[in-house]
Amino acid sequence: MEEKSMRLESVPLNKIRIADDFWGRYMRLVTDKILPYQWEVLNDRVSDAEPSHCISNFEIAAGRKKGEFQGFVFQDTDLAKWIEAAAYSLAFAPDHKLEQTVDEAIELIGEAQCPDGYINTYFTVKEPEGRFKNLSEGHELYTAGHMMEAAVAYYEVTGKDRFLKIMCRMADLLCDVFFSKAYEHGVPGHQEVEIGLVKLYRVTGNRRYLELAKAFIDRRGVEPNYLATEKLRPDWVDVFHNPDPYIPEYAQSDEPVKMQKTARGHAVRAVYMYSAMADLAYEYDDQELLRACETLYEDIVGKQMYITGGIGQSGLYERFTTDFDLPNDRNYSETCASIGLALFCRRMAQITHDEKYVSTMETALCNTVLAGIALDGESFFYVNPLEVWPDNLLPYTSMAHVKAVRQKWFPCACCPPNIARTLASLGEYAVSVLHDSVWINMFVGCEFEMKVCGAPVIVKIESAMPFEGKVKIAVRKKRTGEDDSEPSEGSQTEDIGALMDGALTELSLMLRIPSYAKNSRISVCTKDADDSSCGNSGYQEQNAVALEISATGIGREPETGSRQSFRQHGNDHSEGSFHEIRIPLAYDHDTTVIYEFDMPAEFIYANSNVRADAGKVAVVKGPMVYAAEQIDNGANLAAFEVDTEQGITEEYRADLLGGCMMLTVHGYRLVDDEPEKLYSAAAPKKVPAVLKLIPYAYWNNRGQGEMTVWMRKH
Amino acid sequence: MEEKSMRLESVPLNKIRIADDFWGRYMRLVTDKILPYQWEVLNDRVSDAEPSHCISNFEIAAGRKKGEFQGFVFQDTDLAKWIEAAAYSLAFAPDHKLEQTVDEAIELIGEAQCPDGYINTYFTVKEPEGRFKNLSEGHELYTAGHMMEAAVAYYEVTGKDRFLKIMCRMADLLCDVFFSKAYEHGVPGHQEVEIGLVKLYRVTGNRRYLELAKAFIDRRGVEPNYLATEKLRPDWVDVFHNPDPYIPEYAQSDEPVKMQKTARGHAVRAVYMYSAMADLAYEYDDQELLRACETLYEDIVGKQMYITGGIGQSGLYERFTTDFDLPNDRNYSETCASIGLALFCRRMAQITHDEKYVSTMETALCNTVLAGIALDGESFFYVNPLEVWPDNLLPYTSMAHVKAVRQKWFPCACCPPNIARTLASLGEYAVSVLHDSVWINMFVGCEFEMKVCGAPVIVKIESAMPFEGKVKIAVRKKRTGEDDSEPSEGSQTEDIGALMDGALTELSLMLRIPSYAKNSRISVCTKDADDSSCGNSGYQEQNAVALEISATGIGREPETGSRQSFRQHGNDHSEGSFHEIRIPLAYDHDTTVIYEFDMPAEFIYANSNVRADAGKVAVVKGPMVYAAEQIDNGANLAAFEVDTEQGITEEYRADLLGGCMMLTVHGYRLVDDEPEKLYSAAAPKKVPAVLKLIPYAYWNNRGQGEMTVWMRKH
Repeated sequence: MEEKSMRLESVPLNKIRIADDFWGRYMRLVTDKILPYQWEVLNDRVSDAEPSHCISNFEIAAGRKKGEFQGFVFQDTDLAKWIEAAAYSLAFAPDHKLEQTVDEAIELIGEAQCPDGYINTYFTVKEPEGRFKNLSEGHELYTAGHMMEAAVAYYEVTGKDRFLKIMCRMADLLCDVFFSKAYEHGVPGHQEVEIGLVKLYRVTGNRRYLELAKAFIDRRGVEPNYLATEKLRPDWVDVFHNPDPYIPEYAQSDEPVKMQKTARGHAVRAVYMYSAMADLAYEYDDQELLRACETLYEDIVGKQMYITGGIGQSGLYERFTTDFDLPNDRNYSETCASIGLALFCRRMAQITHDEKYVSTMETALCNTVLAGIALDGESFFYVNPLEVWPDNLLPYTSMAHVKAVRQKWFPCACCPPNIARTLASLGEYAVSVLHDSVWINMFVGCEFEMKVCGAPVIVKIESAMPFEGKVKIAVRKKRTGEDDSEPSEGSQTEDIGALMDGALTELSLMLRIPSYAKNSRISVCTKDADDSSCGNSGYQEQNAVALEISATGIGREPETGSRQSFRQHGNDHSEGSFHEIRIPLAYDHDTTVIYEFDMPAEFIYANSNVRADAGKVAVVKGPMVYAAEQIDNGANLAAFEVDTEQGITEEYRADLLGGCMMLTVHGYRLVDDEPEKLYSAAAPKKVPAVLKLIPYAYWNNRGQGEMTVWMRKH
Repeated sequence: MEEKSMRLESVPLNKIRIADDFWGRYMRLVTDKILPYQWEVLNDRVSDAEPSHCISNFEIAAGRKKGEFQGFVFQDTDLAKWIEAAAYSLAFAPDHKLEQTVDEAIELIGEAQCPDGYINTYFTVKEPEGRFKNLSEGHELYTAGHMMEAAVAYYEVTGKDRFLKIMCRMADLLCDVFFSKAYEHGVPGHQEVEIGLVKLYRVTGNRRYLELAKAFIDRRGVEPNYLATEKLRPDWVDVFHNPDPYIPEYAQSDEPVKMQKTARGHAVRAVYMYSAMADLAYEYDDQELLRACETLYEDIVGKQMYITGGIGQSGLYERFTTDFDLPNDRNYSETCASIGLALFCRRMAQITHDEKYVSTMETALCNTVLAGIALDGESFFYVNPLEVWPDNLLPYTSMAHVKAVRQKWFPCACCPPNIARTLASLGEYAVSVLHDSVWINMFVGCEFEMKVCGAPVIVKIESAMPFEGKVKIAVRKKRTGEDDSEPSEGSQTEDIGALMDGALTELSLMLRIPSYAKNSRISVCTKDADDSSCGNSGYQEQNAVALEISATGIGREPETGSRQSFRQHGNDHSEGSFHEIRIPLAYDHDTTVIYEFDMPAEFIYANSNVRADAGKVAVVKGPMVYAAEQIDNGANLAAFEVDTEQGITEEYRADLLGGCMMLTVHGYRLVDDEPEKLYSAAAPKKVPAVLKLIPYAYWNNRGQGEMTVWMRKH
């Protein structure tokens, strides 16, 4: 069980505060814009957005008003994800009024709960006889899962257990039903509850919840296949009125999960399930299940993932298709799917400590997830194409699912609150801890507290990422009596000072060396607390250790003698890894690690099996994928071709989109010889041209226009 | 009304016999394979094909058996198009047994007709109260149109009027209904009946039919919009249970037809409507309507047509989208839509005499329509992509509508019998006549009879097209008492010999000079009937006139003195035109015109606004578009890029696909530097490679595999 005990953990969100130029903006968006805006939407008070009906449905279910249920069967999840986001937000930005609003919402949820613990407004209000009568389409378990996640989040941040108890009653009911004979083969149509049940188990210790999650995963795709045969049950209720037959592959129920080698079906369902599989692999120390997770991860990342971390290539059924099928304009790449991919990768990274999962998580978060939300926080992409030509995104065509501009809300609004809860919980992705070690996953400027041998340690990260490879990590023991308000004091700091002043212990700082870092340079400076010689420019000091890591990621010996040991995790030189830096901890010693690396913008080629990208290049700089927009380059981006020989010019533009890197590539633009003709034997001319690129995450913040990530190579 | 009287006419199909290597094969397929096979399908006797239910529905409607209607609302049209095809087939290949089968089918139709003349098995059997209660979805008028076309065809070929009378009764009922107050704004949901009504008028002389066709066109898109508001009528009947709202644009009912400037909506509906508009423009000498037709034609050909003559870019709703939106892999390009385009263009060519319409008609017929049918005549494409990767054509994805192999039949089987009737009536496209002139549209080897000043003239065309630019046209007066069996004697030859023997008259031979013809060379040889000096190699004889037409299509003066005048039709030198050759007619003079031209395979570029084709080339030779197939080139055609500098090698391969041209282009193939990675900073290598091309019309006759028309340009 040693392997099991090695799982990394996230720092509790009330112990970490994010504050840097890049991510800080999004955190402020969550508190200042997204949460208030989405609350208004949930209450149908935003006149130019799609009505949500969400609160209204709860009010009807609670008997507070009369009316009819409106919206999708999973409409309740919008409130659940909003509460989860609000909880995370309260962790780093206490807000009495917000907390009161959440408390009131939880009261409403409680009133809408049935005497037996059942909670789901669709079935309570609209289809009371239909409970658990259509698991494929009913989304009751999916909805319950999100409610459980929200309840756990709110409990963990506030300590209030009202919502937790509501959801435990629902979970108890689910256990009764799904461990009963009638439902012994029953599984969720849309996975998610497995994640919620594991979280509920972890805070309550009730193993029945864990066992139900395990049962749902173990039963899936096993004969008799409940979902595939459900329609034949005499009490089956039609929910979607979908004339298509049930497609087991669509819901990953075509074979037992451990036998699944390729990511298939609905992308969000898939990655939510893989996340639960990872949780269960850890909880049950199930190496076979863990291997299945890794196989599925490798299939996604090696054959089915967009360079932006988008997944789900088919607009119809929002699903995976086949290896190397990565069309750029008609794809789905749902924001929620990339969120799910990040959830899955975070779990895998914490279990395996393998940097590759962190890398994919970062790609998904920095590109597709961020692209899902406007810089003003008030509009959202559900679908994330890599190539957009607004003219052909017509309603009632094959391209109708792709939108040229972010929408204020959606009839099916899973993505906006999902983005909110993801951004609000960024701290859970940024760093991980285990005993006396801290793992720096993403270079997010933040300050957090952790315990080393029971003593509180403060880690402060300053970062110029994602635009520049410059990170400063300051580590110090928390002084007795130090102001606890920032980061805020939590229940776990009561033993401050348990370690004797001046006693020497070590923190193991596991610094991520990402694959995009070239010429990594690490300097470690330990100094007396009163000494001010360490700093951005002062790290060649007496006690400092400078180390260079070559482009292949192999560390060479430090220049000066040092007790520090550096070792390489991962086994492929061209891949990223974690480097361990042992840092002495004492009241009179603060340590600063400065990590600098080159991160030149570079051209990236897709595997030639990717038909859609053949002969094309994309540009990345660090974790960010770049894109060309019409506003910077004129219309018809397809007419441009890149001369890669001419390189990439980089310029940080403080005035652009709140400050971002703009890249310039050089090449040619096609000019028709016979522009009046649709087809001509005369080859078009090529005239020299340049193309300006901005981060894909920031596209479509300056009005509607064409966009492309992949560009033809000259 | 002079303009009106100038409309060209097709030669009656019993006066023309097609016999050349290329098209002859298809004619034999119609008689030997397609008609017998499709008859079996219509009778549900092909076990591995989708059941048709078509004859069964008629038998139920006729009261011959009990049962339920099955299939689409327009299922009757499969029989209609089959009878139309059979009629055309009987014109050139008399077949007593086939005729008897058709007669029996017509009896069945007659029995299925209601006492008031109504004929439609769906509404008679399944929804008797629903007649004309849902014009948008009911397809009653569409179905009636195809039945009318079939009835007219059978009458014209056989002289039998049983079916014609059946359909006149239906047409009379339609006139009563749609000229009544209740339906004064009624129009067909799916256009087609307008074509049938015009044909019915032309054989019966009943102007009410013509007026109803005109009313349907005039009413369309005019307020009050019947189709858009139909759902509000108290007696509205739901047919499709489609949750989407009615989309006027989809059915070209969003504005009056004369105001429509762009082709929009469902492609088949569109071109069927444009065909009827052309018919009515001629019948009513309506120049405004004719201009609308030309505008719509120009929009299609200039902005929305694939190089193969395919139209309808969106898989969803089988519809036009927007200018220059021509995706190659997900398009619809329904076979029926290209058939409709050919129908429209034939009408426009006959009205305006403009070669451009002939050119488009030929493109559609030689590429998309022929690609719609396998060389064995037993399987069909409904959707005609220009790029296929079988791996990603998965069910329940955005690509599900595209098939990698032709299907034996379809639940919605409009295309197979539509191909049959089109091929069987090829003679109507190949040549046109007007008074003393004959217009050679397509270089189809055939023999036909026409009248010049009342005297029968035999024209025999031998052609090496579409693979070689060599055509021989022999013209002679029919001798008195000459065997009439080939071409078969018809009712219009009774005045043979009305012209005095030896009297000098002239035939105006309007020879098409297509835009793909380079260095056109025309030789005219008139000789005594007993003289054998004229021939393939003997056209530099005493009376011969040799003429060269430069690449720009401008004729220069003949080398020897001649009474012949050559003039250019059309006004753009780079476009095709018709050249007039006046041919003396006398019993003792036969004339042979030999037309030779260069037709090198060439690279074609799309307008750079076509995002999907940017940086790509296609290869055409004459009217045929060429395509690369996996079977000749290995997998991953996208990895290939063409070096256009290396030219195109041509080779006629008698052993390939029954004899066809194979082209070879040269270039490079991408080879991954890091094949195990999905994305890499290492540019792929390029290794020299060649790509073999075959006519697009012949693709997928050698098993499943990748195919592409557009190739990346090096």
